[in-house]
Formats: sequence, structure tokens, C-alpha cells
Amino acid sequence: MTDTAEFPPDDDNGHESGPTGWLTPEDLASVRAQLPLVYVDAVPVRVDDSGDVVAVGLLLRASPLGNMTRALVTGRVLYHERVRDALLRHIEKDLGPVALPRVPASPQPFTVAEYFPTPGITPFHDPRQHAISLAYVVPVTGDCRPQQNALDLAWLTPEEACSDTVQAEMVNGQGALVRQAMAHVGRLD
Amino acid sequence: MTDTAEFPPDDDNGHESGPTGWLTPEDLASVRAQLPLVYVDAVPVRVDDSGDVVAVGLLLRASPLGNMTRALVTGRVLYHERVRDALLRHIEKDLGPVALPRVPASPQPFTVAEYFPTPGITPFHDPRQHAISLAYVVPVTGDCRPQQNALDLAWLTPEEACSDTVQAEMVNGQGALVRQAMAHVGRLD
Amino acid sequence: MTDTAEFPPDDDNGHESGPTGWLTPEDLASVRAQLPLVYVDAVPVRVDDSGDVVAVGLLLRASPLGNMTRALVTGRVLYHERVRDALLRHIEKDLGPVALPRVPASPQPFTVAEYFPTPGITPFHDPRQHAISLAYVVPVTGDCRPQQNALDLAWLTPEEACSDTVQAEMVNGQGALVRQAMAHVGRLD
Amino acid sequence: MTDTAEFPPDDDNGHESGPTGWLTPEDLASVRAQLPLVYVDAVPVRVDDSGDVVAVGLLLRASPLGNMTRALVTGRVLYHERVRDALLRHIEKDLGPVALPRVPASPQPFTVAEYFPTPGITPFHDPRQHAISLAYVVPVTGDCRPQQNALDLAWLTPEEACSDTVQAEMVNGQGALVRQAMAHVGRLD
Repeated sequence: MTDTAEFPPDDDNGHESGPTGWLTPEDLASVRAQLPLVYVDAVPVRVDDSGDVVAVGLLLRASPLGNMTRALVTGRVLYHERVRDALLRHIEKDLGPVALPRVPASPQPFTVAEYFPTPGITPFHDPRQHAISLAYVVPVTGDCRPQQNALDLAWLTPEEACSDTVQAEMVNGQGALVRQAMAHVGRLD
Repeated sequence: MTDTAEFPPDDDNGHESGPTGWLTPEDLASVRAQLPLVYVDAVPVRVDDSGDVVAVGLLLRASPLGNMTRALVTGRVLYHERVRDALLRHIEKDLGPVALPRVPASPQPFTVAEYFPTPGITPFHDPRQHAISLAYVVPVTGDCRPQQNALDLAWLTPEEACSDTVQAEMVNGQGALVRQAMAHVGRLD
Repeated sequence: MTDTAEFPPDDDNGHESGPTGWLTPEDLASVRAQLPLVYVDAVPVRVDDSGDVVAVGLLLRASPLGNMTRALVTGRVLYHERVRDALLRHIEKDLGPVALPRVPASPQPFTVAEYFPTPGITPFHDPRQHAISLAYVVPVTGDCRPQQNALDLAWLTPEEACSDTVQAEMVNGQGALVRQAMAHVGRLD
Repeated sequence: MTDTAEFPPDDDNGHESGPTGWLTPEDLASVRAQLPLVYVDAVPVRVDDSGDVVAVGLLLRASPLGNMTRALVTGRVLYHERVRDALLRHIEKDLGPVALPRVPASPQPFTVAEYFPTPGITPFHDPRQHAISLAYVVPVTGDCRPQQNALDLAWLTPEEACSDTVQAEMVNGQGALVRQAMAHVGRLD
């Protein structure tokens, strides 16, 4: 989970408090030590006319230590928010307002990524919290412009995205999630 | 399976023989008594901006006995044809060339419908043959015009499509397949 | 969601406080108004030697108003608990220690049931909270004995479980979830 | 597809002719050039008490050229045979009569592997034919004894089965299928 953009704010209003499911940073910190949080992970892809995946979109970010890392679109599901609306909100947050995502018709995720604060229980790790993330492959057809703290969005072939080089640039298990996504769409050789 | 349009011909050239996977009617009749055939079933849907299914498209056809029946898009997978290309071909065959289907990125069908020549083994039945059909929900975004032997294409809400009235107008288990599709997209109440 | 047994306590020790993810009732009440909670729903089934579902297990419970209702196995995922361990814990809680459940190998649920405190947004409703529930079909092979506040466990055929009579005895959308589960296993006619 | 054991015979009686869907070798050769055939691929696994995959079973075979190759359980679906019965039959054929397989309750495969006679269209290749294979992960709990032309059955960890060394010992894309299976069960790092 690399949504460092989320804390502070991931909403349009620039704050995390308010009447509809927003927590103060203090409350959220407290809850994070006591409950698993619900997340979504979106793997943005380009598809050809037959629906076959031809490219995977990965965000390029600078880590707090100054390293470059690649990341998926990810973020929390809010109180009283549908999973598909959370997907749309986070894709717009990260890829801009004209990415034109096609959220799948089925709520069935291709996998559930369990990010534990303790490494090694699953391939996924999040030092801040226990997050249970519903993961979807989401074709986007519009113009994608990285927002907020992302430096760039790179479109890679499935083979490139699964290569050791790119995998080494992903953290907290998101590399494994990209490979699981490519397996799901039949593009993991 | 109501693809009566397929025999005789379902291809653009108007015949089923030739070098690339077409069989003569005699050969096909012989094979049908000996092997399961591979089919695809497509459930055409309209989705809203969040990907939620708002309507299901059903073809209206006249049966050989003159009854009106409703049907899905269905047909055979040909030799050396990808499953996703078979989906595109049959959707174009039944809904016309500008239906603009979005074939899913994943080859994983929502179910496998096993149509047996003997009724009662599964919910699916095909008196002509043993067909194993990969079933997909396919959003279509363009203008759909029923082709060939279909009289009309009706867009129904998920609730209408699953109602007893509409179910009674479907044959060979395709009503069950519509309900399974709506269950898959979270629209079966 | 009818896990009235969970509040107060759903653990073996009879309390919800402690060092590993348990909340006080007050804290939980507060969190419930601010965050979606992660749940699991298990549809217990009997399968034959070929894996085909032959029966569905539904718990019989008395509602606070004295009505009889039928329910699935359901409950919260705790902090630092794997989804599959939550499934095992809740199945043992409701069906007893020798039910011998076979939790699926894949973390992919057959659907995600979104229980909103507001009715009508999805087929699922929970007046107490916003719960996002990962739903799995779980074959059980052992001896099932209803525990705690369940009066009985009844094994119904898929057809019976999907019938209008039984559906009317289920609340908060769990009837729809049973039908979606039967659709997933090819047993919704 | 490495079911070289299938031609000649893959049935218990040692012949491919007869009244229920068996073809003569000549007929089958003819059909193979004209139609896609329906296959199943089973990835045999050992699971722990929580359903988590701990080992993958791969058959060791000698190729016609004398090389050692590793293979999955695979084979054709016969006329009037259910997919789940084909899975059971091929598992018994390859792993013996007391493997005690647990065929999944849902007919939804984790993927559809399209084996083309032409390499490069998909990751899967079968020089003999166009086979469309429904792929399932099947936990087996009994004693597995390789049958017929398999020399051994080796249980590997998911990591070992996905390693470059083992992948190099698999042919026709079955290595990719093992990796896709491990992705599906959350065990592809």
C-alpha cells in the first residue's frame, strides 16, 4: 500500500473530518491499531478491441527516502461508500478526471490482498495497518494524467510489468498483485 | 441453445465448408453425436458510469412452432478461433456491427453451462448435441440492431429479466443462465 | 447480518477486550458509525463425491421480536486475522468444533456483499453498520451442531433454499446471498 | 498438453471405440483438424487445515525424445460427460484410485487455457490440435500413486513449482498454467 497521498487528505475537500465517514487523523490512527480497514486496489490496463490486455499502468512515486517506486491505484473505502464508487474515486484521484475507467460489472474481485503490519503472513505488507483490499483489473480508455504526489504514469506491457526489474521497483507486495492480475487476465507467461 | 441461425451457415461467406475449421453439415452432424462442442454464451448488458448493470438485452425469436422465445447471444467456437474472437463474432452476428461490445479482460467465465442432449442432468439442455458453453457478461455501449432471424432486441431491467414471466419465455435453460449472470453481477435480489 | 451473538462477545473467552484486536463495546459502537467493517459470510453446503452441492445449511434463530428466521454463518474479521481464519472461527462458533469445513483454496470470494445501514442501495442491509462482507461457499463434511443462540441447523436442497418460502424467512438480504451462492455453484435453476 | 497416454486409450477398458462417445483413432484425427476439443486441466494441490495451498503435485514423464518433463493432470471431456466427472476420471487415471480429490463446488474454472496448434497466440500450445481447457485447482487428500506412463509424482512448494528451474521442465505452456493457478490461490509472490 503506497497511498501516502491519503494521509494527509485523499478527498476533494482537503480534509479527513466531516459528517460522512471521515475520521480525524487521531481517530484513524487509533482505529488502525484495532480493526482491519477495507481497501481497494485497481490495476489500470489498456485493452485492445477484443478485450485483451496490452498494457498495465503503474504510477511512479518518490518514497520518503527518495527512492523511486512504482505503485498501483489504491485507497480506502469510506463509510457508506460502495466499493465501485471507491474504485472510481481513487482512479480519479490518481489518474485524473478523464481516465474513463470501466469498472467491472461484477463485484467479485480477482483476489483479496491481505496487507498485514507483520511481514511474511501473506505476500502483502503494510507497516501502518491491517488492510484487506479488494483487487480489480480496470480498463481505462481516456487520457491519464498522474495527480498529486505521483511523478509519472508509465504504460508497460504485461511482460515488462511482470519482469524482475519492474517488480523490484514495487513495494509491500504490489509487485505480486500485478503478477496475480496478469495471471487472471491470461497474460502471465 | 437457440442459435438456429448457425445451421445452415453462421459465417459471412454463407457456407460451413472450407479450409479453416468449417465442417460440412454432414460432418458436423456426425461429430455432434460423438464429441462435446465448445460454445460461448454472452449476456449483453448496459452498465452505468460506475459499471453497475442497469439492463439486460434479450433477443426475441420465433420458434419453429411459431412461439415467441427470448434468447441470449450464443454460438460455436471455431477451429483456431480464440474464445474472445468467438464472442465478438457472435455478438456482431446477433446485435449488428456497431454494438461496441466490451469483452471482459479475463478469460475466466462466470460459469460453464453444460447443455446435454438429455434433459435433467444440468439446468441446461440442447436436443441437438452436447455443448459446453463458456458464459460471459458483456457490456455493450453502441447501437444494437437484431440481425438474421431475431425479430427484436429488448432491454429489460435485471428484475424483469429474472421475473417468472420472462423466464417462461426462455428455453433450454437460458433463463437459468440469465439469473446466474445477474447473481454474478450482484443484481439478483 | 444476523450475528446477534457477536455483541456482546463472539469469542470463546466471552469478552471483546484484550491486546489483539478486540474492541470494547463502546469503541466498536463509535467505529461503526465511521468506517465500513470487514465481514465474512459462509454458505455451508454438503457436496457429493463429484463436488456437486446437494444441500445448504441454514441456521434457525429467534429474532428479538420472537420471529423465526434463517441465517448464514457470518461475522467480523478481527485485527491481524486472516480471512480464512475468520471463516474457520465463525463456522466453529456457529456449527460447532467438528463440522470439518473445507475453506476454499482461493481467497477470491464468489461475491462481495455490501450491507448498508440504509436499505435499497444494494440487496443487503444492516441497520447497525456498514459491513463489507466477503462471501464464500464452504463445504462441511463433519457433524454440525448449532451453537449459542441458534435453535437448529437445517439442511435444505438448493431448490428449497431458493424457494419463496425459505427466502421469506431470511432477513437483510441473506436470502439473495443464498441464491447468488447457488448460482455460483450452478444450482440455481 | 502432455496426455500422451490418451492416444492410444485413455479409458479403463483400453480402447477408444464404443457406444458412449468414444471415437476411433481415425475419426479423432479427422475431427482434430476441424474443431476445438474440450479439455480439463487439474492442478493437484495439498492444502492445510485452513485451506491454504502448501504443495503442488506435478507428474514426471519421459518425453518421446527421452527428456524428463513435468506435467499437470489433463485430458479430454467425453460426449455426455460432465466436466466434474471428466476431472475425477483424469485424476484417477493419473493419480490412482485413492487420491481422494475434492473437485470444487463451482463450475467456474480459474482460467480457460486455449491451446493452439500454432505457437504464440496464447501462452499455450498443442501441436496436435486446438484444445480449449477448463482449468481447476483440485485439493487431493489421499494417497497419490502415479499411473500409466508417469514415472513419479513430486510434491513441490508453490515457490518451487513457480521457480525457473521447474518451469523449464514443463512444456506447452503448462508452466504458465501452474503460475496462474498459484496466483489464483494467492501463492504467487
